[in-house]
Amino acid sequence: MKKVILSLAVSIVFLLHTPAFSQTDDAKLSAQSQECLDCHLSVTPGIAGDWQKSLHSKTSPREAAKKTELEKRISVTDISKIENSSNVVGCYECHSLNGALHKDNFEHFGYKINIVVSPNDCNTCHPIEVAQYAGSKKANAHYNLASNSVYNLLVETLTNTKEYLQGKIIHGGRNNLAIGETCNACHGTEIKVDGKKTVQNAIGDVEVPKLLNWPNQGVGRINPDGSLGACTPCHPRHSFLIDIARKPYTCGQCHLEPDVPAYNIYKESKHGNIYDSKESEMNYSSVPWVVGKDINAPTCATCHNSLLVNGEGEVLAQRSHDFSDRLWVRIFGLVYSHPQPKSGKTYEIKNADGLPLPATFGGKISSDYLIDSNEQSLRKDKMKSVCLSCHSTGWTEGQLDKIEKINVETDKMVLASTKILLEGWEKGAADKTNPFDEELELMWQNQWLLYANSIRHTTAMMGPDYGAFKNGWYESTRNLELMKNFVKVHSAK
Amino acid sequence: MKKVILSLAVSIVFLLHTPAFSQTDDAKLSAQSQECLDCHLSVTPGIAGDWQKSLHSKTSPREAAKKTELEKRISVTDISKIENSSNVVGCYECHSLNGALHKDNFEHFGYKINIVVSPNDCNTCHPIEVAQYAGSKKANAHYNLASNSVYNLLVETLTNTKEYLQGKIIHGGRNNLAIGETCNACHGTEIKVDGKKTVQNAIGDVEVPKLLNWPNQGVGRINPDGSLGACTPCHPRHSFLIDIARKPYTCGQCHLEPDVPAYNIYKESKHGNIYDSKESEMNYSSVPWVVGKDINAPTCATCHNSLLVNGEGEVLAQRSHDFSDRLWVRIFGLVYSHPQPKSGKTYEIKNADGLPLPATFGGKISSDYLIDSNEQSLRKDKMKSVCLSCHSTGWTEGQLDKIEKINVETDKMVLASTKILLEGWEKGAADKTNPFDEELELMWQNQWLLYANSIRHTTAMMGPDYGAFKNGWYESTRNLELMKNFVKVHSAK
Amino acid sequence: MKKVILSLAVSIVFLLHTPAFSQTDDAKLSAQSQECLDCHLSVTPGIAGDWQKSLHSKTSPREAAKKTELEKRISVTDISKIENSSNVVGCYECHSLNGALHKDNFEHFGYKINIVVSPNDCNTCHPIEVAQYAGSKKANAHYNLASNSVYNLLVETLTNTKEYLQGKIIHGGRNNLAIGETCNACHGTEIKVDGKKTVQNAIGDVEVPKLLNWPNQGVGRINPDGSLGACTPCHPRHSFLIDIARKPYTCGQCHLEPDVPAYNIYKESKHGNIYDSKESEMNYSSVPWVVGKDINAPTCATCHNSLLVNGEGEVLAQRSHDFSDRLWVRIFGLVYSHPQPKSGKTYEIKNADGLPLPATFGGKISSDYLIDSNEQSLRKDKMKSVCLSCHSTGWTEGQLDKIEKINVETDKMVLASTKILLEGWEKGAADKTNPFDEELELMWQNQWLLYANSIRHTTAMMGPDYGAFKNGWYESTRNLELMKNFVKVHSAK
Repeated sequence: MKKVILSLAVSIVFLLHTPAFSQTDDAKLSAQSQECLDCHLSVTPGIAGDWQKSLHSKTSPREAAKKTELEKRISVTDISKIENSSNVVGCYECHSLNGALHKDNFEHFGYKINIVVSPNDCNTCHPIEVAQYAGSKKANAHYNLASNSVYNLLVETLTNTKEYLQGKIIHGGRNNLAIGETCNACHGTEIKVDGKKTVQNAIGDVEVPKLLNWPNQGVGRINPDGSLGACTPCHPRHSFLIDIARKPYTCGQCHLEPDVPAYNIYKESKHGNIYDSKESEMNYSSVPWVVGKDINAPTCATCHNSLLVNGEGEVLAQRSHDFSDRLWVRIFGLVYSHPQPKSGKTYEIKNADGLPLPATFGGKISSDYLIDSNEQSLRKDKMKSVCLSCHSTGWTEGQLDKIEKINVETDKMVLASTKILLEGWEKGAADKTNPFDEELELMWQNQWLLYANSIRHTTAMMGPDYGAFKNGWYESTRNLELMKNFVKVHSAK
Repeated sequence: MKKVILSLAVSIVFLLHTPAFSQTDDAKLSAQSQECLDCHLSVTPGIAGDWQKSLHSKTSPREAAKKTELEKRISVTDISKIENSSNVVGCYECHSLNGALHKDNFEHFGYKINIVVSPNDCNTCHPIEVAQYAGSKKANAHYNLASNSVYNLLVETLTNTKEYLQGKIIHGGRNNLAIGETCNACHGTEIKVDGKKTVQNAIGDVEVPKLLNWPNQGVGRINPDGSLGACTPCHPRHSFLIDIARKPYTCGQCHLEPDVPAYNIYKESKHGNIYDSKESEMNYSSVPWVVGKDINAPTCATCHNSLLVNGEGEVLAQRSHDFSDRLWVRIFGLVYSHPQPKSGKTYEIKNADGLPLPATFGGKISSDYLIDSNEQSLRKDKMKSVCLSCHSTGWTEGQLDKIEKINVETDKMVLASTKILLEGWEKGAADKTNPFDEELELMWQNQWLLYANSIRHTTAMMGPDYGAFKNGWYESTRNLELMKNFVKVHSAK
Repeated sequence: MKKVILSLAVSIVFLLHTPAFSQTDDAKLSAQSQECLDCHLSVTPGIAGDWQKSLHSKTSPREAAKKTELEKRISVTDISKIENSSNVVGCYECHSLNGALHKDNFEHFGYKINIVVSPNDCNTCHPIEVAQYAGSKKANAHYNLASNSVYNLLVETLTNTKEYLQGKIIHGGRNNLAIGETCNACHGTEIKVDGKKTVQNAIGDVEVPKLLNWPNQGVGRINPDGSLGACTPCHPRHSFLIDIARKPYTCGQCHLEPDVPAYNIYKESKHGNIYDSKESEMNYSSVPWVVGKDINAPTCATCHNSLLVNGEGEVLAQRSHDFSDRLWVRIFGLVYSHPQPKSGKTYEIKNADGLPLPATFGGKISSDYLIDSNEQSLRKDKMKSVCLSCHSTGWTEGQLDKIEKINVETDKMVLASTKILLEGWEKGAADKTNPFDEELELMWQNQWLLYANSIRHTTAMMGPDYGAFKNGWYESTRNLELMKNFVKVHSAK
């Protein structure tokens, strides 16, 4: 008897601790996906094993659609249009979608499949999320650099390979490799299909489409089916688990120091302090997410886009996959702080000088393209309701008030650096033809792209050192001295 | 039968893994706190849920006082003076204390409560900890900047907003906002009560005290009851759990690169390596803390202030909330290394030049204000006994010896930079009126405030790169070259 | 009955969760080690407790040798030569080995033991690992600096203490202390035995060998028995657990920004993102390591040296303790990228200018000392087979292709900086006698030692920001501007 109890208890403990591949009776693997797995469990055990730990491997769209509104993880309403909707979501269910649109579609052991699964494919089950995302700055991130003449010049100038010749730095041509590994690693490359190629692997010679600018997982990737964006930067292949998307490491791949130190400042904030200390005791998988029960400190997703409820199941914040949904002001990536743009396509903005920027170099805001004060209030209130689930009204108002004020101060510091730059151009210490390539100009970039951003994020997220010594007021102050002295030494006049 | 066993075992596993809100028969929530929770569970579920996971929600002072001396978590001896001492420690038990002293006391739905719970309130149950803390540099951290004329100038110079006008950087007035977000985010702001204000929230219009310089959780905060400091930076609201205070992330909010890279160096040390690898298998909650059983690698708290015992329950180190208790030398924040100050009020120090600093700019130590060699030995021995619980005597002595020696070398490197600064002042490359505002002076600050600190911490905590390339010997060497060349180019003579 | 079940289940749960010191009947502690523990459990509870959680404390060599080939953790074939081979591996079993070779051997309460356990001692049970390691660059890391005239000059120049005298920076003599705390903290010191000394501890006065340059745990340490290297940097004392060696924190102690940002880039890559998010759910202890089951994201060890199998137990990659086993090109620490050296003793290399470097300053490769294209292909294929366990062939080839191309681009950027340096030397902006000590020369070092390394690692490991703003193309571009302008201002002609 004792032995039975012992082994039973041991089994239970293991069942609870070992993530296992289990299917309910109602949700079996399709015959097609089974055939994929027959090979891929051996030849790509990492992909197959990862998927085995996913919800996709355990749930069919049909079952997933039966959950209550708050618990639902899919947003499609009419599942009758979904093929294999009573099967779990296996390899074939995703890689076979919309083949006619996919330039990367090819025949692979009798099946027509795509290499890249795109947001337009995910749209089959998750249409609300895909639609929200499509309107965001993220989905347009590639074009927000490439189709913005100012930013495109910045990108090309910083990443092209240079030579030194007779006292001059000679810039090479556009360096797509470097751009793909840096800016577009986050912003997304344009994946092109360049015919076919034969690859040799365990199974023999296999013919596959040849992709250019690949691999890439940038949020604004241009996919072989023409769709924009990627879901995998936040829901990485092939587990697609929500807990990964909710943990700060995911956002931290792109939103990090020195240019966007959100992740780093979070880590040194009290929020990050509690998160790091209690990570293993909190629940990042539950839908909806219960404040105070599942989590005792927020992650990026908590404040910025997750569906939150209190213990009584009352909604504190609605889910959104437009990540500006709770943001009213934009504090990074541009010369001056400004209201969020109306459209995710920021390259459509024109400032008073005709440039595709939300403000002039002098600081005049391009109001027509930016959200108005009503919309700002609305979004601020959404964020406020998240703050209020853990903080008093007085605390919250004090905090939000500081954000507005610090933006004004950092904009003044940037303006001071812009004035030095203008004087430097006038006095010959730099040549304004390309405003991004010379020492004085690079110092000016530091002032807004690194230091002002750091100071603003510090206040917004309450992690002090990035406002002080680490690209904060210290460097910001020092940089003005450096610029002033540079102009003094290098003026032609 | 099997089903019974199964469900029993499952229940046990869940009980062991789910942090739950449970009260013993002897320790119920007071009627007052119950009334707080009736609303706050809905309107601020984060605060309420956090407290539910605290020991405060599960234990009464009366029960807590019954523990053995080594296991005790409260230090009050006469609990008869504590109101509701048989109840668990709920909202009301803390927020109602010493109302007459609190300028932030206000009436809230029939109760007189304070917004800010201060160390003087925590003193009700934790008097020994509060008394130790009150004498430390931490409790005096606000005044150690604000009441020190040299440091106050440094703070104001680095954080005020600048303009550029006709070749000159014009410094604006004192920028309390920026100081509060940077220096005083750690050192603490002075929280002032500026009348009342009406806030609108879920319940309707509520009148609350209007606090200035709030929110803030700096260690030397000046509270509305006049007390100094805050317990929440290390024991964050509202769980106050000891494991958070013992994990390195907490100290790392303020003691981090580039100015105080203790946290970062710990992370790249062997201690940090083991901590990170085995964090989830160690026990950070037990009191007392058993070396070798609970933990196999120290955190900041282990070496600096926790009560430690060996497996036989013999005390290896006594708890202290004066965080210099095991420190004999001071290696950061000031121009030269020096013995720890006698008093936590470092602004009372006067050096031979009449300045409130533990050494002159030339390196002469202000011995009268610093602990003598006997006290240094005593504190060194305390630290040594911690080292010896995991390392041999030879190892430990070798390590401590290196600390003394590296301080001498870094002080020499700082002296070299000071000499260049003096020559720069003399030759007109900078103006000494304000020693903190110009390029040459900022390079000098880098030498001691960043590079010397990094090198010393590297040796003290054994994480190599901060002594090498990351603000270490590499930058330290480079900075002397930069300073020398700056003086050459910018000398007026 | 219910109570019995309850307590049984509770016990099981605790047994499963509490790492405990348990010995099987076949593997008891030797009498000698028991005597060690009799004291050391009290006086060094950290060491003893750590060992209690090791496999050494639970397994005898005899039992360990019975495992299947893939599961084996020891590689000795003839265990008959091992003393106490039926006992667990206790204090005495390691600290008593090869006493005649150990200058640090001494009598300690009746036993002749060594302070330092060296790779030659570990060789008793782990000969294959020790032999692989001995041939690697790691084991030779001390001499690869000290016996390389160029690198030795670099090391001494950066770490010696400087003074400032009459407009000049005066370099002091070799600073062994600083070198030991920086370069040799990773590369290893030469531990010398300097007679005996008496230490005072809990037991009374104890005479022990006096060690110089100790403590140290660098990978190329020169031990008192004359052997090279140390196993403890990756398998830290005294648990020696394989999971610590497999976690990225361990490699991250030395392979980190700014000079070797492998760890940091891993952390911000998708691999690191998944690792951080799912760390507590993966298995780092199993041997062999099953891709897709034990782990869903690789750590450093996964890609670089661990034994990997798929779910069917087929080997994907063989274990190696020569950490270049899967590396074909060398992308850090030297001026230009180049094929891996043939021998771990890189100080034996001679370039076309007679210097001990794998390339000339102009970029000409020292091919005779570097692996040929066949060996490069072989190693690349080993790495490729690891990639392929989680990625398609097209993905993998695209990725590996980018590495080759980015090396070419970064080498061009370094060449540009070298040309400016040469011009600077010619024009008197720096003196080439020592190529490492002046501002211009330090900028040149930044170009290859920091920026080129960062960009290459970024591509190799797919973490974008170190290729962009953090010591990447941004700084690389800026640095050329700085160097060019420095030569302009400081030229004597």
